[in-house]
Amino acid sequence: MAEKNTESKKKLVDFGKGLVKQAEKGENPAMDVPIRTLSNVNYSQKTGMLSLGIKSSKRFFFNVAHVRKFVQTAEVAALAKELLTVDKSLSLRQAFYAIRRTIAGTNIDIVDDQVESNKALEDLELITDISREQLHINANKLGSIAGNVIIKDKGIGGKEILIDWSKQGSGGWSIPSRVEHLEFKKVDAKFVIYMEKAAMWERLNEDEIWDKLNCIIISSQGQATRGIRRLLQRLNTEEKLPIYILTDFDPWGFYIYSVIKTGSISLAHASERLAVPSARFLGLTADDIEKYALKKHIIRFKDVDLKRIDEISKYAWFKDKKEWQKQFELMKQMKGKVELDALVSRGISFVSEKYLPEKLKAKDFLD
Amino acid sequence: MAEKNTESKKKLVDFGKGLVKQAEKGENPAMDVPIRTLSNVNYSQKTGMLSLGIKSSKRFFFNVAHVRKFVQTAEVAALAKELLTVDKSLSLRQAFYAIRRTIAGTNIDIVDDQVESNKALEDLELITDISREQLHINANKLGSIAGNVIIKDKGIGGKEILIDWSKQGSGGWSIPSRVEHLEFKKVDAKFVIYMEKAAMWERLNEDEIWDKLNCIIISSQGQATRGIRRLLQRLNTEEKLPIYILTDFDPWGFYIYSVIKTGSISLAHASERLAVPSARFLGLTADDIEKYALKKHIIRFKDVDLKRIDEISKYAWFKDKKEWQKQFELMKQMKGKVELDALVSRGISFVSEKYLPEKLKAKDFLD
Repeated sequence: MAEKNTESKKKLVDFGKGLVKQAEKGENPAMDVPIRTLSNVNYSQKTGMLSLGIKSSKRFFFNVAHVRKFVQTAEVAALAKELLTVDKSLSLRQAFYAIRRTIAGTNIDIVDDQVESNKALEDLELITDISREQLHINANKLGSIAGNVIIKDKGIGGKEILIDWSKQGSGGWSIPSRVEHLEFKKVDAKFVIYMEKAAMWERLNEDEIWDKLNCIIISSQGQATRGIRRLLQRLNTEEKLPIYILTDFDPWGFYIYSVIKTGSISLAHASERLAVPSARFLGLTADDIEKYALKKHIIRFKDVDLKRIDEISKYAWFKDKKEWQKQFELMKQMKGKVELDALVSRGISFVSEKYLPEKLKAKDFLD
Repeated sequence: MAEKNTESKKKLVDFGKGLVKQAEKGENPAMDVPIRTLSNVNYSQKTGMLSLGIKSSKRFFFNVAHVRKFVQTAEVAALAKELLTVDKSLSLRQAFYAIRRTIAGTNIDIVDDQVESNKALEDLELITDISREQLHINANKLGSIAGNVIIKDKGIGGKEILIDWSKQGSGGWSIPSRVEHLEFKKVDAKFVIYMEKAAMWERLNEDEIWDKLNCIIISSQGQATRGIRRLLQRLNTEEKLPIYILTDFDPWGFYIYSVIKTGSISLAHASERLAVPSARFLGLTADDIEKYALKKHIIRFKDVDLKRIDEISKYAWFKDKKEWQKQFELMKQMKGKVELDALVSRGISFVSEKYLPEKLKAKDFLD
């Protein structure tokens, strides 16, 4: 379901009016800000997501320690309202510049550093329960997509246009940073494969895997952007498509999977709009390395990788999962990682002709 | 003009036959490999490009110091021939895995590290005069494009499809790593703007700048990929479109411009297929910072940036250009950089409504 600006705008206006009302009553204007430190982040077995706890703190206008953040939060709220009114969007960096100015009669700037505007925005998301995307402030744009899907998007002059993800040739459709406004008009696909590398996407696209297996293929480069995570979630919840994650056999690949599935610590408050708890791991496992004779291609770990295995294996999602702990253990014994690209050593299109069909047929996923 | 594989394949076959013939005659098989060190890289005032000099060295099969590289070069040639035969492509990383294997009866691998296969490939480009793209081995895929252009690409089953860059909505068309096979069917645009940041592309796309100014907008993230550079060159030479480069006011932005214009030292041999000597700089200048009141947004240089200015100002292209030397001088005086995004401080769409129209109308470029 595509977004409407109206509701978000109303929430922002109410937020502003609330502050004004407090001031008019002679009260010290205040806002309730949920606490975003690790101590307030929980993993829920029930939802399968990281989420923010109930702890919050009050931020006052007449308080020397609070006023700077108070004003910054009000400023980003005003900016977001303007963006919704004119139906435009900005990046995080651009939003920083948009609110940066010297307060008249002082030498104090509203913000000195993008870290401040980012934090104010995250606070605003929490206070108003409007996501950054709904506030029209974007994270990175990255990634390509192909599949038997037709979406509705905005064209020139705001006219609705249809975009066919099956007619995008060798490039694919480029995924925007914000996908709230897209509507799925026709989805003729049975599942989605997300991969961490654009080169693998080109391999699969050239092999026409999305047509042969009737799926959607999506790539980013490394960690999935917020736009991609939101798109995966929408395809999962609105179109009931299973989401499969295709990464290397290494702690970083496993972490990419876990972020898509359960959310990330720093964006725990956004899990409900970004996470896909039912996502399944389709990437390389220790068994695959054996089965597909990839041992030759083990790349020796550095200390940083070994340390990362220990960190990740203790994460909420992995901690109690026997199958995952086995992977971590075997990874430590192997003392190295194996890249998906190594499948090319078995043949140019081995990944499309053997690896994917076999694993999908056997439902050989990790959960 | 879109590529045909036939000619490249013939060159590769001839290269292989040449080696076999030498062996059959009882000669020591050898290949002439142009030298790719800095000492053999020249900047030509006439062509406006970096290019490789005429120095070359002979690489022999029966020579302990040569044989490893000799075999690697022959291996990538065989791989490229296979790729052209089946009309598929691989990334540099995948190509490394494709040729990596232990030579029977030994414990010696054809390649131990991707650096080796990369170098062998660059040598092969030089020896055969076939570019890496024509060899179907790709660098990174990155970037988005929009504009009043219709291209011909390959769809499912190799069927030709038309892709309209003006009907790609908020995402744009995702640029493939290899653009050799694309055909420009209809180009209704007067120039091309390349920008270094995807967030700026989204800003301009939302402002429908490509429709309003009748141009094509292209973004990467940071340095332009080979695919994008080749696309810029093809739009410039085949469609006679001027190419304008939109970057920050900082040494890194200037370098992005110089690479697109003249080529890079490490890819000097590929300038003829990648460089756009007529490209013009549309990015922020010291004058713009004054004119558009952006001084407030100067970001202090670190030592590494200051060092970079000195390095770049001595590069062949910039060395004798008064206007550029003035920019470097003012940059040093300013002791900081200014980002294009800072234009947002003047208004959400200031870049689209003021900056670009004014600079384009006044032909306020640096060359």
